[in-house]
Amino acid sequence: MLHLIIADSEVEPVPKNILEHPAVVNYAKRRGKKPEEVILDSTYHHAALKKLEDGNRRGRPDIVHFCLINALESILNKEGMLRVYVHTRNDKVIYIKPETRIPRNYNRFVGLMESLFKNKVVPPDLELLKLEEKTLNQLLEEIKPDAVFIMHEQGEFMKPKDFGQLLKQFKEPAVIVGGFPHGDFKSKVDGVKISLYKEPLMAWTIVNEVIVNYENAIF
Amino acid sequence: MLHLIIADSEVEPVPKNILEHPAVVNYAKRRGKKPEEVILDSTYHHAALKKLEDGNRRGRPDIVHFCLINALESILNKEGMLRVYVHTRNDKVIYIKPETRIPRNYNRFVGLMESLFKNKVVPPDLELLKLEEKTLNQLLEEIKPDAVFIMHEQGEFMKPKDFGQLLKQFKEPAVIVGGFPHGDFKSKVDGVKISLYKEPLMAWTIVNEVIVNYENAIF
Repeated sequence: MLHLIIADSEVEPVPKNILEHPAVVNYAKRRGKKPEEVILDSTYHHAALKKLEDGNRRGRPDIVHFCLINALESILNKEGMLRVYVHTRNDKVIYIKPETRIPRNYNRFVGLMESLFKNKVVPPDLELLKLEEKTLNQLLEEIKPDAVFIMHEQGEFMKPKDFGQLLKQFKEPAVIVGGFPHGDFKSKVDGVKISLYKEPLMAWTIVNEVIVNYENAIF
Repeated sequence: MLHLIIADSEVEPVPKNILEHPAVVNYAKRRGKKPEEVILDSTYHHAALKKLEDGNRRGRPDIVHFCLINALESILNKEGMLRVYVHTRNDKVIYIKPETRIPRNYNRFVGLMESLFKNKVVPPDLELLKLEEKTLNQLLEEIKPDAVFIMHEQGEFMKPKDFGQLLKQFKEPAVIVGGFPHGDFKSKVDGVKISLYKEPLMAWTIVNEVIVNYENAIF
């Protein structure tokens, strides 16, 4: 069983200090929501992001969307051998049941995240997604993996297929992929740093490489 | 070099006979476009789709978006060993330069497709995407692959890693993946039908499996 953690993901409600920024107010109005209910999105809140610390990397629910769409529709997940978690800025953790069908439409996915940050659980009956206050380290203490790998530009280089073989040697390995567009992890975690390519890769590309190569090793 | 063709993709401008449907008219108005300029989208034109032949599978630019986001950010593409083509309903072919950075935001991607269907080339100077009238067979005649594989539910079962090894035996193999949500290809093409899993897979999942396993075979 592979535990895949998308960590320090840039998904969050619009922060307090830009709630009155015109880019945010107009966007919320257009969508019929209150400014404090909408998820920060760099495509639409670009002007407001300039006022935020780390503004050049925040507001990227699209990265999480791509990672989840790929992970949950993978052969590995269909075979019941994958658990996916999304850890976000401000230390929330989203638990996702393996049978969840993530909305294909981006706007609906954002709507789902808004509902999740508001209600902590969606949908109320099936509880496919659940949001809890938790740091990355607390999540790892809970999962209790027998190995922790951090996908990192400065990690030890390893061919993707060799990494699949390495993962196979553990019963419950955890692989941590950064859910941000560039820069480094903000959370401090102990683990073996691994790099799969000579250049930085997008989060969803790493997700695909890890999942397919783990499948090849275990099936 | 792998030639990846997303075929019979459900991307098209809104067809004539539903241009006056309220679902289409309101959507176009909201986006500040003419109804004939917008791309059919099942999320927003659901009511209108019921009036169309094959209405239950049409209007899926999201599938093409996921396939392109994965393919173009893959290690294979970064290494210059991938060419991607999108063939659509009504026999258009979209050529995509390998260096293209597809918009991550879905709404911007749809805007790009609208611009492409209108102007045949985007952006005017770099010509990263180009649209031509062409059948799937005409595209294959042009590419001249030395093998053609069709990813198909009823194809010969092969483990994904074995399929990677098979592809490696050719210099310029073409792999055809259906760019539709369910059902069969509408185009008739000769090729070896291959199935990678006992259940149907999403188009982007097949794209990921094919690309990563081809990488593993050739690198």
